[in-house]
Amino acid sequence: MIYETVITTMNPDGEVHIAPMGIRHEQEKYLIAPFKPSRTLDNLLHSGVAVINATTDVLIFAGCLTGRRDWPLAAATHIACKRLAGALAHVEVRVESSKDDELRPVFACRAVHSATHAPFRGFNRAQAAVVEAAILVSRLHLLPEHKIRSELKYLAIAISKTAGENERTAWQWLLEKVENYYA
Amino acid sequence: MIYETVITTMNPDGEVHIAPMGIRHEQEKYLIAPFKPSRTLDNLLHSGVAVINATTDVLIFAGCLTGRRDWPLAAATHIACKRLAGALAHVEVRVESSKDDELRPVFACRAVHSATHAPFRGFNRAQAAVVEAAILVSRLHLLPEHKIRSELKYLAIAISKTAGENERTAWQWLLEKVENYYA
Repeated sequence: MIYETVITTMNPDGEVHIAPMGIRHEQEKYLIAPFKPSRTLDNLLHSGVAVINATTDVLIFAGCLTGRRDWPLAAATHIACKRLAGALAHVEVRVESSKDDELRPVFACRAVHSATHAPFRGFNRAQAAVVEAAILVSRLHLLPEHKIRSELKYLAIAISKTAGENERTAWQWLLEKVENYYA
Repeated sequence: MIYETVITTMNPDGEVHIAPMGIRHEQEKYLIAPFKPSRTLDNLLHSGVAVINATTDVLIFAGCLTGRRDWPLAAATHIACKRLAGALAHVEVRVESSKDDELRPVFACRAVHSATHAPFRGFNRAQAAVVEAAILVSRLHLLPEHKIRSELKYLAIAISKTAGENERTAWQWLLEKVENYYA
């Protein structure tokens, strides 16, 4: 089972990197598999810690894919790192073991602290559509244009029916990126 | 903005009715619009209270659409009703005003109590796919078969890539209902 979360990691200069990422749970472990090369990978190798942020703020997912990587942070409490200030919940993890890979090394992590900050309000179909669109945008170079456009057309229905302001803005950011890519 | 939640209401005999429902927030109000006729509508008219349950357990969404309406409950604390035992969060509401409608009367409710029980773990694409499929199943009589089948085919991708056991079971329940409908 894969959860789409936002991983925050810190470099040696104390700069925080924010990256949307699908993570897996395996028994008590959290498996984080950043692409090679990536700043999340560098930071995990250097610091051995990360924060897994569970958020429904789709602006952050769409923003990180469209050059908007500056989001409000708060201090983690048990590791030298930061969390998303707006996360509904977060887990502070420490790397226990790692397995190298040409494409995506896997870090098996254990929780050292977790906290809940705000209630989940229920599924929102527009948020799910933004997540799907964000994944399409991350694969523009891999997928044919007609597939991208037909899936976006399908996903747009949930946006028009169930979105709030955040979801509409996130959707717009992603659409602009698609148009710029094909322009 | 519409949140897909599970509404629990109680009839005069103390029987609880569990129904997935999209609800809206309007400033401080929660807007619940049950179809006419429905048990949620009857119960809201009679009791004037309900619980809005936020859950990521898609078995409940798929189950309620496939004749599996018996899910673990716990007592509400501020109203005479029950909540889903497994809800990540719930809000106990009281009807403040209502507006009749031929199709879907609207109840404007205010929260009298809310509580968070478990952390949100992040978006899961398979859960979103089950929610979409559940909505399709609720509209089998309204939509053409080719549309139902092509959307299910698209949604199946997220199931195969990101589902856990619950999501696979929920998906199977919904697919069986579709096949039975067309058989």
